[in-house]
Amino acid sequence: MTEQFAGKKIVIVGLGLIGGSLARALIAAGCDCEIVGVGRDAAVLQQAIEDGSITAYTADVQTACAEADLIVIAVPVLSVKAMLQDMAPVLAPHTVITDVASVKHSVVAAAREVFGSVPPRFVPGHPIAGSEQSGYAASKAELFQRRKVILTPLAETDPAAVALVRALWELTGAEVLDMSVEHHDEVLAATSHLPHLLAFALVDTLSQQGESEEIFRYAAGGFRDFTRIASSDPVMWRDIFVTNGAATVKILDKYVADLQILRAALLNGDGELLHTIFKRARQSRAAFLAMSKPPSDKPAE
Amino acid sequence: MTEQFAGKKIVIVGLGLIGGSLARALIAAGCDCEIVGVGRDAAVLQQAIEDGSITAYTADVQTACAEADLIVIAVPVLSVKAMLQDMAPVLAPHTVITDVASVKHSVVAAAREVFGSVPPRFVPGHPIAGSEQSGYAASKAELFQRRKVILTPLAETDPAAVALVRALWELTGAEVLDMSVEHHDEVLAATSHLPHLLAFALVDTLSQQGESEEIFRYAAGGFRDFTRIASSDPVMWRDIFVTNGAATVKILDKYVADLQILRAALLNGDGELLHTIFKRARQSRAAFLAMSKPPSDKPAE
Repeated sequence: MTEQFAGKKIVIVGLGLIGGSLARALIAAGCDCEIVGVGRDAAVLQQAIEDGSITAYTADVQTACAEADLIVIAVPVLSVKAMLQDMAPVLAPHTVITDVASVKHSVVAAAREVFGSVPPRFVPGHPIAGSEQSGYAASKAELFQRRKVILTPLAETDPAAVALVRALWELTGAEVLDMSVEHHDEVLAATSHLPHLLAFALVDTLSQQGESEEIFRYAAGGFRDFTRIASSDPVMWRDIFVTNGAATVKILDKYVADLQILRAALLNGDGELLHTIFKRARQSRAAFLAMSKPPSDKPAE
Repeated sequence: MTEQFAGKKIVIVGLGLIGGSLARALIAAGCDCEIVGVGRDAAVLQQAIEDGSITAYTADVQTACAEADLIVIAVPVLSVKAMLQDMAPVLAPHTVITDVASVKHSVVAAAREVFGSVPPRFVPGHPIAGSEQSGYAASKAELFQRRKVILTPLAETDPAAVALVRALWELTGAEVLDMSVEHHDEVLAATSHLPHLLAFALVDTLSQQGESEEIFRYAAGGFRDFTRIASSDPVMWRDIFVTNGAATVKILDKYVADLQILRAALLNGDGELLHTIFKRARQSRAAFLAMSKPPSDKPAE
């Protein structure tokens, strides 16, 4: 599977958790390619060289992207446009570009703004992986194993470019799927963006209570799990909510409406309704677990 | 530490996750006492005998509680009153009673209703331990190690009874603390009851979406952690919310108000406010983790 990347120049712009893990995964898969890391933190890039997870690095996007075969943009959503602008002048006709952002419509819009239309060799992508940890230090070669990567090609996207990006992610052990941009952003709003918003909000609500320290003191393991995602990178999540606000508000409103039903049941002591909803939720989660294979490793804390 | 329990008769009413784990922990601590399990499921009781986690069992509360030195009621909150009624006729003057329910004011009210006033030798208690798993099959001797147990004695509670219950829980490796009934119920509403309500609600909201199966299909590890507590026992949680509804609604309303602030920021694309709140939440959670030692083992799935 690695043959098609032999001798190729792969550029990873942004060597954080996702970019760093992708670099490590490609090396671990035995990819005989050039992997150029681009980042602002020289110490991180130097560490990546020492780790053997990249073959070269530079802080300059244009230097890196000249004559690249494949460019992976792995920066927060709102920074994608600036990266596209930087690299636009040096792109070769055959260069394939993909990204890893959690919101796809804004990345597509950025590409359209930078290039006038979305380039056929730009393949929007999103690995459904990660953790509340961030940065290169948290990266690991196994991050994408048995995880899903969603590609959201447009009608004008070159199938050969899609195939190349698919092959890249398959090398990391991921399962690669296609979806429309709009559908991706709605599904992710429900399963990822809303839960993160709820977790950030809960920790913040409790921390604003007068006795917050004491409140946290008596929190147990369930609280720790429930709020784990509230330790996620604030910049990355700011960007996600600024760009996917509309879809998130849509599902948030449904959620708050359901909370109001539960609130009424609490005030009325309606045990039957509570029991019905809790049983249904427990069954739904069991069904969810059955269809999603749990990862072999859990994020450490 | 086990000497004061040597030769004593300890009765555990309800051999689920908490009752079963307590029995196992006492045996593991080398407690040379009689441990009588009370439950409705003969197969579970027989299994507990075979495991060596109890020394005897019966389905009859009165048979078990006659001449008991210490009775631990480990059933869902709304069932505590019936257990107190059952055992009332056979209690010896020296018998100490405690419970493990997550809501204390209703347990105290139940004791007052059954006995006319709260008996001096009744010590309301609550181990802050457990998981989304339930039942004797999930019980383990280590469940309470480095966890907190909150006792909520009243002015009329006998200090010697409190000391005995404290010693019992210390044998399991728990840290034992005192708190008022009202304060306990408020703190737990914030750190445990509200998160469970939010998790049950989220899974239920998503499961009611038209494409729920597809939504769950693309959920990742963060969603799994966030919703773990939605797999908790529906009867136990129905009882908790029926009895602690008022305190839960109080903190729920603050939470929903904070969600509305975030909702407005999403609609307005107010990245600065989002960033501020997310940073604050992340810092608060880091402070919470620093003050709560994580358990050595994580619930498996």
